[in-house]
Amino acid sequence: MPIPLNAKKVFTGEIFDVYQWEQKMFDGSTETFEMLKRSNTVDIIAVQDGHIIVADQEQPDKPLFTSVLGGRQDHGESAEQTAKRELLEEGGLASDDWEPLCEVRPYGKMDWTVFVFIARDCKKVQEQNLDAGERITTRAVTFDEFLNLAISNNFAGREITEMVLRLKLESEKLETFRKKLMGI
Amino acid sequence: MPIPLNAKKVFTGEIFDVYQWEQKMFDGSTETFEMLKRSNTVDIIAVQDGHIIVADQEQPDKPLFTSVLGGRQDHGESAEQTAKRELLEEGGLASDDWEPLCEVRPYGKMDWTVFVFIARDCKKVQEQNLDAGERITTRAVTFDEFLNLAISNNFAGREITEMVLRLKLESEKLETFRKKLMGI
Repeated sequence: MPIPLNAKKVFTGEIFDVYQWEQKMFDGSTETFEMLKRSNTVDIIAVQDGHIIVADQEQPDKPLFTSVLGGRQDHGESAEQTAKRELLEEGGLASDDWEPLCEVRPYGKMDWTVFVFIARDCKKVQEQNLDAGERITTRAVTFDEFLNLAISNNFAGREITEMVLRLKLESEKLETFRKKLMGI
Repeated sequence: MPIPLNAKKVFTGEIFDVYQWEQKMFDGSTETFEMLKRSNTVDIIAVQDGHIIVADQEQPDKPLFTSVLGGRQDHGESAEQTAKRELLEEGGLASDDWEPLCEVRPYGKMDWTVFVFIARDCKKVQEQNLDAGERITTRAVTFDEFLNLAISNNFAGREITEMVLRLKLESEKLETFRKKLMGI
């Protein structure tokens, strides 16, 4: 559910803002309800030369993990603009063949949408351009390697993990997904 | 990752507390990092007479959804005490045959653990005792119905959804899980 229109912002954080509102309960009493808001993010399934580009990442407060490319939406950006910027910054890559795949809201009490994009036929156009809080090495993996990575413990991005688990249970949908990424 | 010991609580909410700390970046500069803390919760896979008890729930700010029984840990409670209390309050049920199944941290930037329990051989011992913000109808489903429910769109509890998706991909583990719940 979205944050109700009558909710008030009671805290502004670095990542998370907190909203509260008075909610009428089933017995007519009232309680203070709470939800969070954070910037939306994008996930990019980037395809280059028949492989998928994944990111081995280190962040200052975390051990090494693997994910797809992506990041937070800046103020005023569309999700597609964010995806193009992050593909360039994190991967040094650009694509002219984008497709929005799905939108996921990972956590009920948080106004946060993850926009998942496919970027086919990626080309290297520049070097990476990382923030001080990022160490990212990109790596090209096969479609099957990608499926295994996405459901491994070390993979960050539960929305991608759940999507891949569901695809693995339905061979027809998995084949459609493979074609969507890799062509025939 | 846990919240670092040097982090300071900067906001105390109804559900969410916000912590911040100064994090050294890879280039030696410093940035303010942020994490959330919320009460841990329990999920109970309750078994009664060869069926699993699920909860059809309404909350004042949400449409109808289905989940397992469970809820938030009160201050000073162990996870097992929470599970026993919630089974009683939400289901009117008690069990003498508990087994901790797993612990899940659903969201990286939040100090929040979900403790998943199995409660076998549940017995009705009292009527439900619900909060003003709860409308819960319990329902007994077969093991296969439970698996299908857990991966349906209307099910709340992504940790249970992901667990069931993984089990469905490994028939041996699924059979072990079935025996764990239902006996031979």
